[in-house]
Amino acid sequence: MAKDRIYLDWNATAPLLEGARQAMISALALTGNPSSVHAEGRAARAVIEAARREVAALVGATAPNVVLTASATEAANLVLSPVFRMGKAPLAIGRLYVSAIEHPAVREGGRFAPGQVGEIPVTPSGLIDLAALEALLAAHDGTAGLPMVAVMAVNNETGIVQPVREAARLVHARGGLILVDGVQAAGRIALDIDDLGADFLILSAHKIGGPKGAGALIARGETLMPSPLVRGGGQEKGHRAGTENVAAIAGFGAAAAWARDGLDERNAAIGALRDRLEAGMRNAAPDLVVHGAGVARVANTSFFTLPGLKAETGQIAFDLEGVALSAGAACSSGKVGASHVLTAMGQDAKTGALRISLGAATTVEEIDRAVEIFTRIAARRKISGAAA
Amino acid sequence: MAKDRIYLDWNATAPLLEGARQAMISALALTGNPSSVHAEGRAARAVIEAARREVAALVGATAPNVVLTASATEAANLVLSPVFRMGKAPLAIGRLYVSAIEHPAVREGGRFAPGQVGEIPVTPSGLIDLAALEALLAAHDGTAGLPMVAVMAVNNETGIVQPVREAARLVHARGGLILVDGVQAAGRIALDIDDLGADFLILSAHKIGGPKGAGALIARGETLMPSPLVRGGGQEKGHRAGTENVAAIAGFGAAAAWARDGLDERNAAIGALRDRLEAGMRNAAPDLVVHGAGVARVANTSFFTLPGLKAETGQIAFDLEGVALSAGAACSSGKVGASHVLTAMGQDAKTGALRISLGAATTVEEIDRAVEIFTRIAARRKISGAAA
Repeated sequence: MAKDRIYLDWNATAPLLEGARQAMISALALTGNPSSVHAEGRAARAVIEAARREVAALVGATAPNVVLTASATEAANLVLSPVFRMGKAPLAIGRLYVSAIEHPAVREGGRFAPGQVGEIPVTPSGLIDLAALEALLAAHDGTAGLPMVAVMAVNNETGIVQPVREAARLVHARGGLILVDGVQAAGRIALDIDDLGADFLILSAHKIGGPKGAGALIARGETLMPSPLVRGGGQEKGHRAGTENVAAIAGFGAAAAWARDGLDERNAAIGALRDRLEAGMRNAAPDLVVHGAGVARVANTSFFTLPGLKAETGQIAFDLEGVALSAGAACSSGKVGASHVLTAMGQDAKTGALRISLGAATTVEEIDRAVEIFTRIAARRKISGAAA
Repeated sequence: MAKDRIYLDWNATAPLLEGARQAMISALALTGNPSSVHAEGRAARAVIEAARREVAALVGATAPNVVLTASATEAANLVLSPVFRMGKAPLAIGRLYVSAIEHPAVREGGRFAPGQVGEIPVTPSGLIDLAALEALLAAHDGTAGLPMVAVMAVNNETGIVQPVREAARLVHARGGLILVDGVQAAGRIALDIDDLGADFLILSAHKIGGPKGAGALIARGETLMPSPLVRGGGQEKGHRAGTENVAAIAGFGAAAAWARDGLDERNAAIGALRDRLEAGMRNAAPDLVVHGAGVARVANTSFFTLPGLKAETGQIAFDLEGVALSAGAACSSGKVGASHVLTAMGQDAKTGALRISLGAATTVEEIDRAVEIFTRIAARRKISGAAA
């Protein structure tokens, strides 16, 4: 990789923090299986439990309510279950309602049958439609079980902050459960499980500077838990079997500790760079459409459509010029398809949109070079558009 | 951890190979999400695909038939599904038969309902009872679907090599599917998916010197696959969603390459040490019972009962003397319970058994010190037994 590459795809995955890297390298030196009772096993166990406390603290939860998984996707599949237990008693979930802009890991509904999953629309401005949610909950047929609602705190493509607290109030007024996907919110906005009123939160390590390969399902209470997804071994109090990835968990803990601190300073710096980027791009292309510019967004994300430039063409052009950015999300194995988020917002998804997402290590020089490159690409777009 | 600890619990987890550690550290420096189409994403993708080829080569499979998971436990839960697809057509599995000595990850039956799981007994010598398997298959009621059989190639507690080829022939004669748990066999005996006749194999990275956090489900063919366990993202050709753990996968690949080479030399050296250990222990305690001594075992494992010494007491005594070994398996979160393997072999599981498992880094000095420590513990056992 050339040294002068500009990485502006932090929402896809963030570079590993040095603290997380060091925690992982230390953990890799520990031999024991965390389930072994000998000294080597106990040393590995201690690393996991320390990390669990850091992950819990990031969202104001208690450590025993954190189930460590290999990814947020796994955590979503664990919690999106029609079968729960309340202590020892089974509890049925009759129907799952997911917003139209959820990540595929949530949108596909986990272990619910396709017919058990309903969709919550979003408004043209990209916010979950609370009135529609209320109507869905009012129409919920409780005979098959409780309603469960899944919404994201921050959308991964637009960066728009969603009305999670309000959604939680609506869900709880109807006796339902709410899962909040905190993957893109963690480290970017305050995320307290009690304050949000979330029954469950999911997190991903690699979006906050930890490693790929660690995620968590965090419960607000102790007694209500989904039926296990991965069974056979007794780890994670029976909620998730398999030898724990000690190194990835150690890195997750270090990243969670980092994400908790200095949020306002970080956002001020990143937000200033994002605003500089958008001002520069608008200057070069006054017809630029920035999605979500009119509502609350996280500081690091810019999702925009440049008329006449197809997103996938734009993405390749930026890549050739040394800039890593994304056309929509990066979750589908290299396939660049139409953005379901744009479609849900009622936008024309054919041209698509490009996503630039910044991080704590992004520099003003990188932003200025990205604007220069944008300017060159924007100048070529008529030709590009005509040729396409 | 004191420098002079002796680690003899390689079947619980093997120390990370230096080659695997280096591969992981290199992979941690790659920023991209493997699903991203930009240069950073493609670099991460390349690491995964190179590792996939190494894992495939370890068992004579083709890389496209390897589904990378976070653990062998996850791989077991993926493949142990009553719902398969043959190309695009659904295929039902009516009943799962697991041997009585399987690892809990297999024994709990994955996504089969408890009533859909039958048990294959083992002989007193610790071998899967092929006559009993044949009778179970003959009695299989095919109306609900095909039979599926799960057997391990090598038992994790005894080290006994199981008659997998013969089991596969019996299963195929009845049109069934066979899953072989190769976790403890990989790197210890030749393990070729075609030669075994396995329809599916599962592997774990951390048992062969790779990191915790990587496993694989390997299929012999391309068309027959289980319903996905973790959905929503399109990774692993739709068989397993979630951002890939690039570093752990890189380490798995390096360990798989290592495990493939020099098997005979490694086994000769390790087997000589294991025989020296058992001779030394027998010398100190002629009443020592070595389980599986009369049948084919892998070279690195010794599973023994010392009359008058309860396994859990023995394990703690060895730990205090600086030796890490295990009382049965390490898979159940520090709980030391009765060994289901001993019980299945018709042995008295009350006293239990200790497992010493060696690896390529085990030295003759470590073995001789372990024998000295064993000798001291054995000398105390009457007192220990009386006090218990």
